Parts: sequence; C-alpha cells; structure tokens
Amino acid sequence: MPDDFERMWSDLAPVGRSAASGGYFRQPFATAERELAAWFEEQCRARDLRVERDDFGNVVGWWDLPVVEEVAQQPSRNPGPAAVLTGSHLDSVLDGGAYDGPLGVVSALAAVDLMRSRGVTPGRPVGVSVFVEEEGSRFGLACLGSRLATGAVSWETARALRDRDGVALGDVVAGGSSSLLADVGTFVELHVEQGRDLVDRGAAVGVASEIWPHGRYRFDFTGAANHAGTTRMEDRQDPMLTYAMTALAANKQARLAGQRATFGRVAVEPNGTNAVPSRVTAWLDARCSSDDALATLVEAITQQASDRAGRDGTALAVTAESVSSSVVFSPDLAAAVAADHEGGDWPIIPTQAGHDAGILSAAGIPTAMLFVRNPTGVSHSPEEHASIADCLVGVSALADTLERLTR
Amino acid sequence: MPDDFERMWSDLAPVGRSAASGGYFRQPFATAERELAAWFEEQCRARDLRVERDDFGNVVGWWDLPVVEEVAQQPSRNPGPAAVLTGSHLDSVLDGGAYDGPLGVVSALAAVDLMRSRGVTPGRPVGVSVFVEEEGSRFGLACLGSRLATGAVSWETARALRDRDGVALGDVVAGGSSSLLADVGTFVELHVEQGRDLVDRGAAVGVASEIWPHGRYRFDFTGAANHAGTTRMEDRQDPMLTYAMTALAANKQARLAGQRATFGRVAVEPNGTNAVPSRVTAWLDARCSSDDALATLVEAITQQASDRAGRDGTALAVTAESVSSSVVFSPDLAAAVAADHEGGDWPIIPTQAGHDAGILSAAGIPTAMLFVRNPTGVSHSPEEHASIADCLVGVSALADTLERLTR
Repeated sequence: MPDDFERMWSDLAPVGRSAASGGYFRQPFATAERELAAWFEEQCRARDLRVERDDFGNVVGWWDLPVVEEVAQQPSRNPGPAAVLTGSHLDSVLDGGAYDGPLGVVSALAAVDLMRSRGVTPGRPVGVSVFVEEEGSRFGLACLGSRLATGAVSWETARALRDRDGVALGDVVAGGSSSLLADVGTFVELHVEQGRDLVDRGAAVGVASEIWPHGRYRFDFTGAANHAGTTRMEDRQDPMLTYAMTALAANKQARLAGQRATFGRVAVEPNGTNAVPSRVTAWLDARCSSDDALATLVEAITQQASDRAGRDGTALAVTAESVSSSVVFSPDLAAAVAADHEGGDWPIIPTQAGHDAGILSAAGIPTAMLFVRNPTGVSHSPEEHASIADCLVGVSALADTLERLTR
Repeated sequence: MPDDFERMWSDLAPVGRSAASGGYFRQPFATAERELAAWFEEQCRARDLRVERDDFGNVVGWWDLPVVEEVAQQPSRNPGPAAVLTGSHLDSVLDGGAYDGPLGVVSALAAVDLMRSRGVTPGRPVGVSVFVEEEGSRFGLACLGSRLATGAVSWETARALRDRDGVALGDVVAGGSSSLLADVGTFVELHVEQGRDLVDRGAAVGVASEIWPHGRYRFDFTGAANHAGTTRMEDRQDPMLTYAMTALAANKQARLAGQRATFGRVAVEPNGTNAVPSRVTAWLDARCSSDDALATLVEAITQQASDRAGRDGTALAVTAESVSSSVVFSPDLAAAVAADHEGGDWPIIPTQAGHDAGILSAAGIPTAMLFVRNPTGVSHSPEEHASIADCLVGVSALADTLERLTR
C-alpha cells in the first residue's frame, strides 16, 4: 500500500532543510534535489506508474490505460493520445518553503491513490510529472525543465548556462531530447497559493485565470576600484551608489504603477570593506499586469539607472535574461474545472508567479492550475505554509479534476 | 649576491595575480601569501638576516650588531636595545594592487643592500619586518598582525575571528605570544601613496604626519523573505531598500562633511532573484579628520538608516568591528626624517589609510612613514602604480633614513 499524503509529506520534510533557518536548499542536480528525484521514482514504482525520463532530467510516472490483450506483446512506449498530465517540481529557491513545488507532486500521487480508492478507471492515461529547475535558482532560467521539454529553449542555448560556481548545465545533465509531452492533451498543476486571494475569498482551493508577464534582467554597474580611505568622494566612480539608487527607483516605480519589482540578488567585486567596488551586478525581477506595463516599468527603471550612472561616472549594461509574456489559461478549461462543486464553484484568480503550467500553456497544451490556500500568503521563504486540512482538500479537488478530464 | 630591487619586484609580480583582472588576491595564510612569506625568509637568509618569527605569523629578518668576541658563545636572542625596524606587509585586499604592502618590504631589503654597498655600519640593529593580515581582507580586522604583536588585540579575541568560509584564525595559526617588538626603538614603514598629494607637490617621496581616525561598522538589515512576484509592494519588509538608502546616505553625509564613507562589501540572504531578501549585511568603512568627526558621521548615517528601517518595517543592528583613533606620528621624528636632503626637505603629508605604522605608533613606539609617489593616486585596485624610478628614489630615501636613525 503506497504512502498516504501525510506520510509522503513528512518523509520529504527533512530533505535539504537548513537547521539554521528552517528553509529549504533543493537546487537542481545537487544532493537534496537528487534525493527527492529518487524518492519520486520510488513512489511511482510503489503505485505501478511506469517511469519515463527525458534527457533533461524531467520525469513522468504514467498510469497507462489497460493494455488490450492482442497488442500486449508490443507495448507502446507512449501512453496514447490526449493523456492528462499533472504535477509540479521538487526544486526550491535558496532558503525556500516546503510547499512551492512538492505540494503539487505529492498531491498528484495522492490524487492517483484517491481515484483508485474511488474505483475510477480513467478513460485517458494519467501522468504524474516532475520538471527540473522550475525556480531557476541554480542556472538562472526559471522553468528550465519545461522550457526544454516544450522546445521553448533549445539545448544548444541551455547547455551553456552556468551556475554561480561556473558549472555548466551541460556538465550535470546529458541533454538531448524529450518526448514526455508528445501525447499530452491537458496539463494540470496544483500549487500552493503565493498570495492571499483565497484567504480573502474564504476558499481552500481556487483555479488560475492567468499568469502576469514577468522577467529577469541583469544590471551590470561598472566603476573604478579604489581605496575607500584615500579616495576623495568627488574623485570616485562608485557603482554601489548607482546600484543603490536603482534599487530604490525600482521599488518606487513599481509602487506608482501598481506592479512588482525586486532586487533580491547582488554580487559585488571585489567586495572588500576598504575598497570602492569595481563592479556591482544585480538582478531585477519584474512582474506586471500586462506586457506593455512590464516593458514600461523596466524602461523607467533603466532610464533612472542610466541617469544616475551618468552622474556617478559609472557604466550600466542591462541584459534581459528571461522574459515571459502574459499567459492566459484556457477560460473554458478553467470554467470546466471550477464549476459545479459541492459548496459552489471554486474561485478563479490570477497569479504573479511563473510556473511550468505557463510554459506548457504557451506551448499550446490546454492547461489548468489549482491553488491551495496559504494563510499568510508568504512564499519563497521558510514561513510558507498551508494547513494539512487544506492540502487534503487540494488532493480531493485534483482527483475530481482528473476524473472530469479523463472521462 | 642578493637580488636587486627590480629582480625582487619582477619575482613577486606573478604571485597571486588574477589573469582576468590583473589584480592580486593575497589573502593571509592562503597559498599566494604563504608563497610570499617563504620568499621573504629566503631573501633574509640570502642577506644573512637572522629570521625571527612570532606565534601569529609575523616575521622579522634582523641585521644584528657585530657580536663582541667574548660573549659570542652565548648569543642573545634579542637584537639589543633601540633597534630600528622597517617593513610593511605582503597580503593584499581582494583584487588589489601590486604596491600596497610589498613595496615597503622589497624596499626595506633593497635599503639594507644599499646601506651595505655604501659601507654603512649601523650603530643599532636593523630589522626588516612583515606583519600579517594588514588589510583585514580575510578575518575582517585590519592590521591584525601588528595588533597582536603590540597587544592591541588579545589572542583570546583574535583567535575566534572567522573568514567568509567560517574558518577561524585559531584554525590557521598557532597563536600565543610575540617578542618581535621587545627591543624596537623606532619603526619606519615605506608605502606607496594612496592619494595624489605627492603628485600635486611634485615630489617622489614624502613623510607622514598623521593617519585619520577610521572604523569598520557592520550593518545588519533584517526583513522578511517572500516571493518577489506575488508579494504586493506594500506588504513587504525588504531590507535591500533600507540598505540601498543607507549606502546613498553614507555617501551624501561624507560629501557634506568633507570626510570619507564607503559601502564596498555586501552579503545578501538568500540572494535569489525571485525572493525578497530576508537579510542584507553591509560593511561601512568611514574615515574622518578627527575622532569627533568620525563619531558624528557614523551617528548621522546610523540615524538615517534607522529612520528608513522604521518606514520599511525592517530591523537594523550596527556593530563597530574596529575603530582606530587618530594617529599623529612623532612630529620631531617626522621632521628629522624629512629635513636637509639634497633637493630640499621632503613634504610632510597626512593619510586617510590605516597602516601597521599606526598601530605601532599608538603602542608607544616612535614611528615614521615614508610615501612613494603614485601617479594616479589609485590604490586597492589593479590600477595602483608607482614608477620604477620613484621606487628607487624610495629605496634610497629609506636607506638614508635608516642611516640617520641608526647612527
């Protein structure tokens, strides 16, 4: 008998957890995340789900349709047309929470168990998926696994991505191709909510309407290293000042526009107390309600940064490392998933967070997302939380959804 | 025959040099700096200078007085009273220049050679010294070796200092005591100038009048980690904003007061692009023309930081990691060193940079500093420079000074 939700959840709890912060460090292709990947395959085998891997580290456990007797000698490698895929990711941001990613994977496995306990025989294959490096915490490109699986990014481009230690993606995974999505007709991702819409609406689960457009932009500020004591203030070309003003400008512009802008990652060279820096590199994370608003926001921040660079005698280069346009999930599918439940329709809400679901949707696969209520709305932090009761409502909602979609 | 100045200089040139930037990474008790320490002892032996080490990693090569025949069977370990010590350091800041430190050591060895070639027999012992971790680039406390040798900091305190990887000073050096300075009557440090006073005055060498008071202060800004996309701007407690405003405030306050303030080192947690940081730690380097001005400047910056922290919902803790009061070098000694040279008196100028000379002076040892002209004034940078011609003038000036002081 496979582990139930609570058993699976408590098994994952210690993996990659920092004793100091209580947060998770599950970076792709490193020890903790690899332990989770092995755990996932073991859970698939315990459920007789056929494990299929692609060349990028993505994995699906297939609940295949019953094999017709006369073709049983030559089983098809593929699950057949119009399969319904559900799942999420197992990697975390640096010092992240327990729920972002794993909740969708554990709930998918538990939903398979629930469907089977209900005696459901799906009319279509069901797959439970794990895509790698959803957070981009190691190689800098969010949704890397799903981008590779859909062809949104080529292996030629991705293999050269490097982590902070200079290790290339091509050094840690073979690369090649993926046929995991070849026969997928629908994708459903369950995820902890990363805001408080469901709290405000008093609902344990909801359905996504859209993902805001968002992007990551690297700002390279360069100046001139010098002695922090002997160099007169007026003789400096200090890129830290240009960066500092840019961080404040990003916050102010986002507030004024009702959008989101964050500088959460910074690297300083040489990063010595008694030296004016030669270079400050900082990454802007920007999210907006429309593609135009995103372009306008980034342009305004870049303009203020450039003006300040002129006054500081520093130089600025801005590189868009990834930009994702607005994703509007199929309204018909969202409505079909959300409607006619005991206790009423589930709310349909937007999100500002990127997800593999957004990549699959943009690749033309009809996609839906389920959210599970998060009492504080906090995410990407050890404080991220969902109650077990709400998680179990989520499992049931996902099982209901899979039943509807595989009829 | 010992190596001459230019040969020594070119031998040191490749050690710890980054091919990428051309700057030096000579952190204490690491490979490159240990190679320099071994080189120094070899150079001492090539000159028949008796090598004496203390328990902290500081080293002196002694040019002892001739031993009187009848006591030769029981040579004193100490060089005798009122020795004249000269030297500097071999460690560098991160990505530093070639001259800051090594110029004083190489010039001291070359000055011994020059005195000998002139047939000088000093009336007092002469020592060539190397103090470790002058820059504080690894363990955070500048002039660590000279502070330990003078007792300005205790081993009990120093042994617990940790580098960025968590390695304690007590793990890399034995610790204990030092008698290197027991019989030192005068200390002279030659150093590349880190400003442009000598350029303005058209002089190749100058003498220090004083060192500005200076300090290092750690600013810990703490907030709440959260998702960079889904967290509304008004719901954030983002310590990056408080830090950014503080960096700008430090610059502005220092400009207004005619003093110096720098944030050159920053550490962010978790330092992920898509997470509002939980913590930003930044180090303020402040230098002022008086102790009062330093206290006032740091107070003003701290006040502005605290006010902003209140508005950002973040917390601030400020820790003074090291504060050095004003050091006024003996005016009589400076005048005696500077006066009556061919071509006129050498200029006497202040400096804003800390030096081991400041520590020894504060410990009651009469101390002088010689500066060698730096065409751009740039220091703590690969761009740091002095011409070979000026360096050789420096060697001659140091030999002249040692002759005067050992008569």
